[in-house]
Amino acid sequence: MGAIIASVASTKYDQHPESSSRELFGEAAAEAFEGTPLFPGDVDAVYVGNFMGDLIEDQGHMGPLLADHVGAREAASVRIESACASGGATIRQAVSAIESGAADVVLAGGVELMSVADIEHVTDALANAADDVYENEQGLTFPGIYALMARRYMHEFDATNGDLAAVSVKNHNNAVENPLAQFQEELTTEEVLESKPIATPLVLYDACPVSDGASAVVMVSDEFAAENDLDTSASVLGTGQSSDAVALQDRASITRTPAAERAARAAYRDADVTPDEVDVVEVHDCFTIAEVLAIEALGFYERGEGTRGAVEGETAVDGTLPVNTSGGLLGKGHPVGATGIGQVVELTKQLEGRHPNQVDDAEIALAHNVGGSGASTTVTVLGGA
Amino acid sequence: MGAIIASVASTKYDQHPESSSRELFGEAAAEAFEGTPLFPGDVDAVYVGNFMGDLIEDQGHMGPLLADHVGAREAASVRIESACASGGATIRQAVSAIESGAADVVLAGGVELMSVADIEHVTDALANAADDVYENEQGLTFPGIYALMARRYMHEFDATNGDLAAVSVKNHNNAVENPLAQFQEELTTEEVLESKPIATPLVLYDACPVSDGASAVVMVSDEFAAENDLDTSASVLGTGQSSDAVALQDRASITRTPAAERAARAAYRDADVTPDEVDVVEVHDCFTIAEVLAIEALGFYERGEGTRGAVEGETAVDGTLPVNTSGGLLGKGHPVGATGIGQVVELTKQLEGRHPNQVDDAEIALAHNVGGSGASTTVTVLGGA
Repeated sequence: MGAIIASVASTKYDQHPESSSRELFGEAAAEAFEGTPLFPGDVDAVYVGNFMGDLIEDQGHMGPLLADHVGAREAASVRIESACASGGATIRQAVSAIESGAADVVLAGGVELMSVADIEHVTDALANAADDVYENEQGLTFPGIYALMARRYMHEFDATNGDLAAVSVKNHNNAVENPLAQFQEELTTEEVLESKPIATPLVLYDACPVSDGASAVVMVSDEFAAENDLDTSASVLGTGQSSDAVALQDRASITRTPAAERAARAAYRDADVTPDEVDVVEVHDCFTIAEVLAIEALGFYERGEGTRGAVEGETAVDGTLPVNTSGGLLGKGHPVGATGIGQVVELTKQLEGRHPNQVDDAEIALAHNVGGSGASTTVTVLGGA
Repeated sequence: MGAIIASVASTKYDQHPESSSRELFGEAAAEAFEGTPLFPGDVDAVYVGNFMGDLIEDQGHMGPLLADHVGAREAASVRIESACASGGATIRQAVSAIESGAADVVLAGGVELMSVADIEHVTDALANAADDVYENEQGLTFPGIYALMARRYMHEFDATNGDLAAVSVKNHNNAVENPLAQFQEELTTEEVLESKPIATPLVLYDACPVSDGASAVVMVSDEFAAENDLDTSASVLGTGQSSDAVALQDRASITRTPAAERAARAAYRDADVTPDEVDVVEVHDCFTIAEVLAIEALGFYERGEGTRGAVEGETAVDGTLPVNTSGGLLGKGHPVGATGIGQVVELTKQLEGRHPNQVDDAEIALAHNVGGSGASTTVTVLGGA
């Protein structure tokens, strides 16, 4: 039994401090259902990606809470959490539910509300994705973790701040065209390089913002789609997921992301696709260095050559391997639990030929979603309907 | 592809304030692997049930953290949260992973550390399972929620405090024989009735305690078990899961748990089993009234007749339908994320004929795990190896 995407939708990623998780999730889900003849009551299972609802809104148990709010009160509903990879892991559980026969119609959604809290509280909440004993209690924050990775990468491969800045410029400029993106202003390399240092060598525009938002995917089994003669949007060709030590100190190298390498190999095998067949990619660019490491781990670039992507324009919308045409986390925003779902929303639009930064002849798409500094990674390969 | 239980283990449920989630989880997982020729490195996926790690230990992202700690660093790992049904939902995701072909060997574990925090903080954390807007902010706590359900049940069906006390007496007395149980002292009806009121009509011994602990199940596909000529412990015959409104005010009746009715129907259908074929049951008795509602929802008793189970001795270890031979949440304890996994551990021992409160000829077993006041419920039906 294969998993088919019937419809997708997303709120604008932005700061919505007047909102709540249930409102944002409800908005995305309602719009997703508008795109199909299905109703929320048809849903067998609701999978909710969310990272910090407990910490920000005093609200756990988001599975039934949000299922009920969108009209799927009786569905088997559950929250999936794997830090910033919660969305990707949610997609993978939804696919398993369909492939196992446990569900025919699934709502896989993600939501995060962050901007209602003050920035120190959000920073603390995000730190729950790191190893509390071996990282947080030693004073290491996420900008610091990624700064260590960036500095080592620059040392090993003679990369420069300008190489990293090129990733931010590309993704911010892609975001300008995407009405769902948080940032809507063009950036220049100079503006990136002159922005405030946050953890040397990283500067402000090397990092993604604090965002609120929700994304939703209505997924069905291929059998259900056929029996109901359903217009569909895309198909899930394969998925992969792997893990690594949470604490950076426990990794053999901090300029490689082996969980992503393993997840990608598994997803390519599952999809029976090779990296050179992929037409359009969304990767987890929480920091500029993360996009560079991602496109290497996914098999698109040799180690140490990932910076070429943005610098040479190869990963631009009209390049040989368009990466983060949505704007990515850097430009579109990063409402944690929604991000991995939002990647699938964006790529589905590419496969349907209706993306604001449309890639010509997009037939195979890949999403890469990371938790922490690489401890959990999911890869999803999508094809046309 | 069917899911087979290769091995199970559990820490003692108790207060372990000197411990951490990773230590408790590690202890349970290590003991589970001792029971099989498999190694942690053989595991394809690790599912972790946990409810309040973020709030108590400042630690999210428990999937890869605990997978790595037990020696399964590269497995696809994820945390599953559905409040107090997190463990049952974890079992169900693990089964889906196997049945979909995504994994051949899975570690499904659950853990909760609660006693390190002061009781007000634990109460706040538990409240995240309720609807923050419509319940918590109105001053309704879980003892209050279950007290409303109990009072209404007593009104509708002429039940008494003594009827509820009989559940507590049975489960505490079962716990005495279970070395993994938190409470090891016999209780009398008088001791229950004379215990401190916590939310009238409920008294202290109507409620489960604050507990720390972890439980682990090593699960494999039937194909993997056959190919590797593995000695196995039990088989998963079927699962079911359903949801309901989180807030009590949104339910048509507060003396019925329809999510449990639906989850049970789905599990019986999946397992091709009828209620009268079930030999031994673990239900989610977070409060005495919850056990009464559970055995009605599961189809063992008509509405309003569930009190007969404990009062007449029918649900005793030597009764016609032994319920909570482990001691249940009331006697064994309730380390939230572990509880649903621990139920499967206990029932597997029953099916293997090695339970401290062994039921004669136990061939079919059922676990019922609830989140909140009934908003999420999972039912798992097990058979012999």
